[in-house]
Amino acid sequence: MSRLKTIEWGSGNGVRIIDQTLLPERILYIDIVTIDQMYEAIKVLRVRGAPAIGIAAAFGLYLGVRDFDDNGNIRDFLSHIEERANYLATARPTAVNLFWALDRMKNTARDCVEKTDDICIYALKTRLFDESCAILEEDRRMCRAIGEAGFELIKDADCILTHCNAGGLATSELGTALAPIYVGHEKGHSFRMIFADETRPLLQGARITALELSEAGIPVTVICDNMAASVMATGQVKACIVGADRIAANGDTANKIGTYGVALIAAAHNIPFYVAAPSSTFDLAMPDGAHIPIEERGREEVAQWCGGKKTVPDGAAVFNPSFDVTPCRLITAIITEKGTIFPPYTENIAARLG
Amino acid sequence: MSRLKTIEWGSGNGVRIIDQTLLPERILYIDIVTIDQMYEAIKVLRVRGAPAIGIAAAFGLYLGVRDFDDNGNIRDFLSHIEERANYLATARPTAVNLFWALDRMKNTARDCVEKTDDICIYALKTRLFDESCAILEEDRRMCRAIGEAGFELIKDADCILTHCNAGGLATSELGTALAPIYVGHEKGHSFRMIFADETRPLLQGARITALELSEAGIPVTVICDNMAASVMATGQVKACIVGADRIAANGDTANKIGTYGVALIAAAHNIPFYVAAPSSTFDLAMPDGAHIPIEERGREEVAQWCGGKKTVPDGAAVFNPSFDVTPCRLITAIITEKGTIFPPYTENIAARLG
Repeated sequence: MSRLKTIEWGSGNGVRIIDQTLLPERILYIDIVTIDQMYEAIKVLRVRGAPAIGIAAAFGLYLGVRDFDDNGNIRDFLSHIEERANYLATARPTAVNLFWALDRMKNTARDCVEKTDDICIYALKTRLFDESCAILEEDRRMCRAIGEAGFELIKDADCILTHCNAGGLATSELGTALAPIYVGHEKGHSFRMIFADETRPLLQGARITALELSEAGIPVTVICDNMAASVMATGQVKACIVGADRIAANGDTANKIGTYGVALIAAAHNIPFYVAAPSSTFDLAMPDGAHIPIEERGREEVAQWCGGKKTVPDGAAVFNPSFDVTPCRLITAIITEKGTIFPPYTENIAARLG
Repeated sequence: MSRLKTIEWGSGNGVRIIDQTLLPERILYIDIVTIDQMYEAIKVLRVRGAPAIGIAAAFGLYLGVRDFDDNGNIRDFLSHIEERANYLATARPTAVNLFWALDRMKNTARDCVEKTDDICIYALKTRLFDESCAILEEDRRMCRAIGEAGFELIKDADCILTHCNAGGLATSELGTALAPIYVGHEKGHSFRMIFADETRPLLQGARITALELSEAGIPVTVICDNMAASVMATGQVKACIVGADRIAANGDTANKIGTYGVALIAAAHNIPFYVAAPSSTFDLAMPDGAHIPIEERGREEVAQWCGGKKTVPDGAAVFNPSFDVTPCRLITAIITEKGTIFPPYTENIAARLG
């Protein structure tokens, strides 16, 4: 796995995260010891990636309530937890894992109080800390299970292409799309090359995927997104693996913009195209990809360099969708922590996850 | 056509070019009055695009010899032309049109001296000026012929996608890939939208194509290269048109990196994919695209933002091919100034251009 530690409980007093706003120029770990620091870290993307944000939120809430008077009123403590969770929930508006983790922490506290009449505040704080650690640990296990299942699919592949970052820096440890590669690397499988699409506009592939793979000692080559077809035409790429933001009941997969193009190009070259994602990514209420809403982001991400230099004239419009939808027919298999799912997807997804 | 004038003879004393290094932030015309200024302008890409460089070189050579003593020796003048041409030829190492235009100017001078015993230096200078103007005029006619032929193919299309810049700013006026769009616009055809791939790493689509189309009053939307599949999936794109750097005898086409991916994605959506290029782009000695050498450029174009901020970690490699090869089977038609060529290409290219 990568030597980079996305998030972990530090040496006693707080949470240690890698400051992702500085990557790849500088690898700096920072200790978060207050909820306000965690709020800021989530807001400005020092910690990013849905699973990692969930873990950060859980620990952040613990940091926000640990100094409550141990001799105070337990109902006041529950209100305090609620209020602090509501505050942290505003750090990012659309991060589902953020809300999910905070709800889980609040429910844990309420359940404890309901089930154990005489629980003390000190014990409840310990319980919340343990729940944060459990969220972290579950994420680690989920990533490892995806990695083990995924490696079975790529164990004869020495060259893989990936898009965006669905790696350890978006989760606790191994990531999702990169987990099969890390597991293979651990098992001594030799990867000749991993191609990382740079992933415009925000370059998560260049900045983050390339960093974590190279830090893990796995050879990685960054290409512009428009070079993927050229690289695949050479015959060296044996598989593509990407993550997912949402998977519909029929297997249609929303993921970072550009994923659909990679899938089309892989299909044209008879290269297997795998999606790796936790079962929580599936939205079985969504029949197919046509119903998945696609966020559009601002012009400035495309229209200027980092630093503000203009790259698109004012007279031209910019279209900046964050995600696209890859139809299930282009997906060779979907790798989850509950095993690998093959077509036909509607039946097999329902059977495995329904 | 675009209101931007790439290159033209100015108000008496020199060549007026648009300084393309400042685009799109600033539209500035500069007057080039010496060969040294033209050398610098070509070298630092104030003027770029193979046809435009050829025109610039021809006028640049004229500027370099026009102050030769009219009462001097005609053989000394020919030597001077040769020496000045050799100097200008070093402005860019691989620009075929640069050498072609300089050779044409040198040959013009030699032919005149050989055919007209008593030609005076003043008359020879006039002849060289006229030859520069002829090169410019031929390019204008070539672009217009491509535009007229190409518009026949797209006259029912209201939305077109293009890649890189094969527009007026690379030529004298209408460009190649953009010529059918400009001709259509002139004829009153209403384009709902032209999508311009930004074209990483150097963003010629965002910076240049978007500028010249918007200056011409044609609606243009810039997308990242990895958004082309998503846009084509919506069904709004009715045709793709790109330029070409070299076309083999069987129709395989080398063009800016990313073109092959656009062609694959267009084919997957049953969208016509057109190549527009002058007949001089064909290399009939090259049997197919596998033989076309592909230039690889430096790491820094991909690995840092304009301004120097690092976007790829030092531990990761970068692969930066400048061109890719689109196989002829993905090309719906090739538009030239000698008419449009359809499959089967080997026969039809030979018939039209052989």
